[in-house]
Amino acid sequence: MHVLHDVEAFRNACSEARRAGHRVALVPTMGALHEGHLTLAREARRHAAFVACTVFVNPTQFGPNEDFARYPRDLEGDARKLASVGVDLLLAPPVEVMYPSGEQTRVRVGSLAEPLCGAFRPGHFEGVATIVTKLFALTGPCLAVFGRKDYQQLQVIRRLVRDLLLPVEILGVPTVREPDGLAMSSRNLYLQPDERQQALGLIRGLRAADSLFRQGERRAGVLRAAALAPVEEATPWIDYVSVADPDTLSIWADEVSVGERVLVAIAARVGNTRLIDNAVLGEDTLPLP
Amino acid sequence: MHVLHDVEAFRNACSEARRAGHRVALVPTMGALHEGHLTLAREARRHAAFVACTVFVNPTQFGPNEDFARYPRDLEGDARKLASVGVDLLLAPPVEVMYPSGEQTRVRVGSLAEPLCGAFRPGHFEGVATIVTKLFALTGPCLAVFGRKDYQQLQVIRRLVRDLLLPVEILGVPTVREPDGLAMSSRNLYLQPDERQQALGLIRGLRAADSLFRQGERRAGVLRAAALAPVEEATPWIDYVSVADPDTLSIWADEVSVGERVLVAIAARVGNTRLIDNAVLGEDTLPLP
Repeated sequence: MHVLHDVEAFRNACSEARRAGHRVALVPTMGALHEGHLTLAREARRHAAFVACTVFVNPTQFGPNEDFARYPRDLEGDARKLASVGVDLLLAPPVEVMYPSGEQTRVRVGSLAEPLCGAFRPGHFEGVATIVTKLFALTGPCLAVFGRKDYQQLQVIRRLVRDLLLPVEILGVPTVREPDGLAMSSRNLYLQPDERQQALGLIRGLRAADSLFRQGERRAGVLRAAALAPVEEATPWIDYVSVADPDTLSIWADEVSVGERVLVAIAARVGNTRLIDNAVLGEDTLPLP
Repeated sequence: MHVLHDVEAFRNACSEARRAGHRVALVPTMGALHEGHLTLAREARRHAAFVACTVFVNPTQFGPNEDFARYPRDLEGDARKLASVGVDLLLAPPVEVMYPSGEQTRVRVGSLAEPLCGAFRPGHFEGVATIVTKLFALTGPCLAVFGRKDYQQLQVIRRLVRDLLLPVEILGVPTVREPDGLAMSSRNLYLQPDERQQALGLIRGLRAADSLFRQGERRAGVLRAAALAPVEEATPWIDYVSVADPDTLSIWADEVSVGERVLVAIAARVGNTRLIDNAVLGEDTLPLP
């Protein structure tokens, strides 16, 4: 696996792979890689002969009081892991190249970016949309692979690609979980042992809603209340427990009867660590407890 | 010359040309083509073996009270003109493809888009940046050619390309003028004979400032006053007559001493027609009266 810091060398390597007749897959990450990321890379490899991965902790998607400075960074470890799953190329670009001096351009997706995490992290999805547009521009025509763990991000990126007519196909990959159901996340590294237990409130909430849904419950308010209870039991710091349309991300009011697919999305803090999780009931399979 | 309405066919044709080893040039226009546009196409041809042109009247760059509905449209005439200067491919895409159902993505350039026309046409440069990003995504790596007549647009697009790391080289082409100095514009079609005379106020303003500048005058206020007088004589409907930094577009205050390059930019209405013109004194050559 080649490790590059130079974006033009990366651009050329991707073009070269295409010229050689290979499909190119891109796996954009912020590093601190775990099994979830490696699943993205393996999935990319299944679909493309040439797999490129990027590691870039993107400053514009962090708010001023968020964890940009302490976000875990381990490029050597990341490179070892990516090489082990057959990634061909790793780009770790300098921030001053991704955001050149005097830069002032942003990409904004509208209503999809407003509810859920958008309401609690102003500017977050604008930062995501902007960096992803840049990474797509560097990679050129490709298959880009993202996790469904960041479900709203995935929907924002799908919309961005359609709207800007980018030559990119998006593949969403199911969330990878620890044996006890906790969604894998680089931020799990922050958790103290007691917080690690509290963190299970999120998957318990999803399971509770899923269980009712599979019994035929369709009232948004009842599903939401079922998801909320285990989260409230685990932590008082809840950003949201929402029941929403999986395509538009519009929040369903409690009195609505949801259809055969419904998004349940949760964001909550345990200690200082903000965690998110979600499931599209009727579509995703949650592991048994 | 091939005329296409299908964007994917256009994308493929551009890829095909690159695969055949040709450099691709793009000339984006809103149609109603005049000699200024044809100069862009000829310039494109000088630099690239394959020249693609687009004709698309972009709704998002027009304000609600502007001339979107009545903007001149003549695709057949445009196609004839482009064929005559050796353009290879013309794309005239449907609006519902450039702005697909549910679209909600916008590209925004910051401070460069704020002064001058940005202050009088809210959202205009966001519309320009958005459509140009889409056209670049369709064309792929290319040389894109724009006129210096729309100087602020050119600077916004240069910034956008740098900031989003797009594989596009931008070429700015000097303004093409009528024999009496009027900058060519599709909107000149709107002018009644008396308005056509009034419209010369803009070039007279630029010439007045240029003449002082060449005599060594560097006081921003004096240059601005010189440019303003002939415009005021021609029309009471002046949006701005400004003296600004040609790179940042920051407006120079009257008391500033400008450097060896200075932008003089003018926007004014004659009758119902909004006209713009500009010159970078110390860089552009204005025709003699």
